[in-house]
Amino acid sequence: MSQRLTVTLQPAGRRVEVEAGTNLLEAAQKAGIEMVASCGGIGICATCRVRVVDGKVTPPGATEVEELGREQLEAGFRLACQTVPLGDVRLEIPRESLLGGQQMQVTGRESQVEIDPTVRGVDIRLEPPALDDLRSDTARVNEALIRQGFAPLQAGPGLLEALSLCLRAEGWQARLALRPNGAFSELAAVLPVGAPLLGLAVDMGSTKLALFLVELESGSVLGQAGVMNPQIVFGDDVVSRIAYANKSVENRKLLQTRLVEAINLGAAELCKKEDACLDQIVEIVAVGNTAMHHLFCGLPVEQLGSAPYVPVTDAALVFSAAEVGLAAAAGANVYLPPNIAGYVGADHVAALLATQSYVDGHTTMVVDIGTNTEISLIRQGRVLSCSCASGPAFEGAHIRDGMRAGPGAIERLRIDSEGVRPVTIDGQPAVGICGSGILNAVAEMLGERLLDERGVLNVKDERVRSTNGKAEFLLAPASSTGHGRDIVITRKDVNEIQLAKGAIRAGLDILLAEANISPNDVDDFIIAGAFGTYLDLPSALKVGMFPRLPLERYHQVGNAAGVGARHLLLSRRKREEARQIAAKVEYIELTTSAAFTPRFVEAMYLKE
Amino acid sequence: MSQRLTVTLQPAGRRVEVEAGTNLLEAAQKAGIEMVASCGGIGICATCRVRVVDGKVTPPGATEVEELGREQLEAGFRLACQTVPLGDVRLEIPRESLLGGQQMQVTGRESQVEIDPTVRGVDIRLEPPALDDLRSDTARVNEALIRQGFAPLQAGPGLLEALSLCLRAEGWQARLALRPNGAFSELAAVLPVGAPLLGLAVDMGSTKLALFLVELESGSVLGQAGVMNPQIVFGDDVVSRIAYANKSVENRKLLQTRLVEAINLGAAELCKKEDACLDQIVEIVAVGNTAMHHLFCGLPVEQLGSAPYVPVTDAALVFSAAEVGLAAAAGANVYLPPNIAGYVGADHVAALLATQSYVDGHTTMVVDIGTNTEISLIRQGRVLSCSCASGPAFEGAHIRDGMRAGPGAIERLRIDSEGVRPVTIDGQPAVGICGSGILNAVAEMLGERLLDERGVLNVKDERVRSTNGKAEFLLAPASSTGHGRDIVITRKDVNEIQLAKGAIRAGLDILLAEANISPNDVDDFIIAGAFGTYLDLPSALKVGMFPRLPLERYHQVGNAAGVGARHLLLSRRKREEARQIAAKVEYIELTTSAAFTPRFVEAMYLKE
Repeated sequence: MSQRLTVTLQPAGRRVEVEAGTNLLEAAQKAGIEMVASCGGIGICATCRVRVVDGKVTPPGATEVEELGREQLEAGFRLACQTVPLGDVRLEIPRESLLGGQQMQVTGRESQVEIDPTVRGVDIRLEPPALDDLRSDTARVNEALIRQGFAPLQAGPGLLEALSLCLRAEGWQARLALRPNGAFSELAAVLPVGAPLLGLAVDMGSTKLALFLVELESGSVLGQAGVMNPQIVFGDDVVSRIAYANKSVENRKLLQTRLVEAINLGAAELCKKEDACLDQIVEIVAVGNTAMHHLFCGLPVEQLGSAPYVPVTDAALVFSAAEVGLAAAAGANVYLPPNIAGYVGADHVAALLATQSYVDGHTTMVVDIGTNTEISLIRQGRVLSCSCASGPAFEGAHIRDGMRAGPGAIERLRIDSEGVRPVTIDGQPAVGICGSGILNAVAEMLGERLLDERGVLNVKDERVRSTNGKAEFLLAPASSTGHGRDIVITRKDVNEIQLAKGAIRAGLDILLAEANISPNDVDDFIIAGAFGTYLDLPSALKVGMFPRLPLERYHQVGNAAGVGARHLLLSRRKREEARQIAAKVEYIELTTSAAFTPRFVEAMYLKE
Repeated sequence: MSQRLTVTLQPAGRRVEVEAGTNLLEAAQKAGIEMVASCGGIGICATCRVRVVDGKVTPPGATEVEELGREQLEAGFRLACQTVPLGDVRLEIPRESLLGGQQMQVTGRESQVEIDPTVRGVDIRLEPPALDDLRSDTARVNEALIRQGFAPLQAGPGLLEALSLCLRAEGWQARLALRPNGAFSELAAVLPVGAPLLGLAVDMGSTKLALFLVELESGSVLGQAGVMNPQIVFGDDVVSRIAYANKSVENRKLLQTRLVEAINLGAAELCKKEDACLDQIVEIVAVGNTAMHHLFCGLPVEQLGSAPYVPVTDAALVFSAAEVGLAAAAGANVYLPPNIAGYVGADHVAALLATQSYVDGHTTMVVDIGTNTEISLIRQGRVLSCSCASGPAFEGAHIRDGMRAGPGAIERLRIDSEGVRPVTIDGQPAVGICGSGILNAVAEMLGERLLDERGVLNVKDERVRSTNGKAEFLLAPASSTGHGRDIVITRKDVNEIQLAKGAIRAGLDILLAEANISPNDVDDFIIAGAFGTYLDLPSALKVGMFPRLPLERYHQVGNAAGVGARHLLLSRRKREEARQIAAKVEYIELTTSAAFTPRFVEAMYLKE
């Protein structure tokens, strides 16, 4: 019989019994505590930091010595995924290691769209059957529909049952949600007379889900919510999640189930606020990168995990919401716009759709920044697209003191002769630094010559200190922080930013070269995505992440994919446009492009 | 705490513990013994007869005294549904009270049909993805389909998953089952290259289910099976089952589940015999009367239980087999032909379709005999249809010694001065009399003047005896029977036959009157249904069940509905014909016809 140990988790105050050999991350997950574990528990991201307050654990390995440093190890800090208890233990989980309380980006620039949804509502009022009128329920309904200009019904038995019961319960009247399909009207829902038809648009980011509850017939957004993507506990980037999914079909289905549950929960809360019910949701649009798209649909992702990275499908999908377990009307469909390639997904198609108003004869660059950054250059009817592995540094991962954009994160700062003046989210004591802060810090350090173009810290400057023989720059001393530890920028942190911005800039340059134009030919430079909204444009220009153009050409549009998803919910014509956009894209695979590597190396330099 | 009693059931040798107050029928059902309980356990059909061998039970009530008589009660016979144990008891269940071992009717006259199924098979062989060919799986498949003259794929995520996995497992080849639908090919199944596509046709009778496994592309019937309709334990006729279903949604869904399970089991056995798998079943056709149709689909039946008896739908239904839990290919559909009215169902449409070859300018009468008998008169492009509640007497129910057409049932007999010479099914010692035997007995008794036209037994004839003051005719003395009890025909038995044949004859006459023709104008008189095949035509004519026509005009065609179901499986054109037939039917509601009652009273007389 194997030994069982007790793990106590603070500040939540939870206790959990685990088998000997279970690591602390698994113990926390078992206790229902959702920790950040960006790399999926393989010990390379240092986001699952915990402090062992009491009890014996396995000694730190090389990874932890590297990621945490002696000072933190001595203070009891450990990586939860690398540490196994040897007896009963008590842990303290720092706030930055917990999910929840994150800053969310769910808005984007709205543009006008003609309301023409796939589902229409019609109120019917019928005469009940009588001895001289023996028509079936559907014959009675069809007569009313045809009189009102609709095609006759098509429905499976579940909906016919609902129809028959509702008509008898509601005095032979009902509101039908109908989806015109050729000679038939597919029945999407049977509702009480007058009930508004709702739609749900979901932007499934790797990190965050943005949900929009929309009144289909008016197009108005009734409510919106940002929730964490629960898949994050299985890995912070899609590559880790693909690796996790490929271990077993159960793993893959678990990623699907967790995601769908989170969407259902978010939708239920949005409905509750509007005094509506989930049965009123008659259409759902979901957008995401290709990996999110496949995991959501329950499609295999093995082929996304290795070259040549082909998706199962690049066509738009329409299927019953029930097939993936989404809570909605019995006849609700889900629509997912087409994917472009293994790493340019349906979310980028939605973003291109939402930003079309900028195009109109202009040359437009659309950069949707995330763990994976999709870039499109639109010029003279051509659409050139590529995808860059920009990594999670802009999300605060793989950075020594990095964190997500939550309370206490340094989001911007100023460095001058007076010292460092950090600004944190919500003005709380600093506990780490988020993506926009890191980019800002690197630009400021460059301006102060604390860094050179190669990203090397200037050890001759007295403000650069050395800890265990490694150069680092102090952003906030322990005395000023929320957790009593120094917050610093290391050489490695700078290098992560160089890799990220270098990848994006190389992608931009290759698209410009492919179109045979110079940066100055770009009329509109659209920066989309949550990080793109908070990004400090001067810093981005200073480190050479983007080419320098007149400032008015840059547009930080927020969640363009979410806006695109709403357009696809409201307008059948937009779906046709999405198809046309996806079909038009000329995809440039950077991993096999001979020009990429030299451009990438060049673009890692910190210069305009 | 309530008392628990043990009930032991022989000859199965099962024991079951029940709560005090549970009746013996419920106890047998709990023990997994499927008993006949034609009336649904309300004590009026006397089919659930058991013998209490040991232990105390409640005393017999008036129903049992009436149905069983003193002799049987003294021998320990009781109606299981009316008897409650008062302590541990041991029962013997006579074979005639058990389901199973019934004679099945699954064949019918075949006619030619052009093979044009809704689903087609296509073998595809693809080049795998490569660095210079990044197309998605579906793009690759679509190219191959278009090259072979098929429209591009449409599929939900479950089938796309199967497709992607199969292509990689099978070296980039597969056999796709495709359902052409406008600009798309709906994916019904992904199979190994060369696997035959199968279809399943099911005739869902109230008593029996006939299943046919068909190779879709050749049209050949690979196998067929007859299984009991498991709903029979909840009531032998649809009226009892509707009453049971209307008690709760759970009851209604239980009737559906049991039915679907029986079909799945039957299909699995048919597939096993052919070394095929259920995944090869890409299309299913199910026909049944309106109540069976609704119970199969899970539709409400409350409105079928009272006037004006309207169905939920009279249109043909097509939906995913998975929606009702049928085991088949992931993308298999079920098709049910249109219903005509509350009591003229999709099975009659199928029977009309199968017998169309008789029509061709002729005047044709189609009589599909069952617990409910549907009749259609086809003449000069008109189709007049009605439904008669002929009752379960022809299935052996509501008859003192009645039983189903199983081994030991008297199926025909000869009465003359020498006595009675019964013939039993399988030549086994008689244990009861089945429908064809009863009809035959009544005709013979009429011939021997043991009966008069009113159905009154001639007590002056010494062969008619009196038991407890009631006249009865001995068919087989206890010494000759398999269970050691007399088998007799009573006045009540004769009356049941009068009611059944009177209802059918009245229906026939009313249709003839409606068409303003005489019986002799009928060119072809088609007798369909299982009982119709075994029915002794001279007996039926002698008692006046059918009008007398030259014998060559009668056609006993067997299971026409099953044949029609197979046609609907194989031919899209037949589905269109079914729609046209159903649309053409002029339904005559007998319950509200002023002409019916006098015709019915007249038709009960036992005369030509």
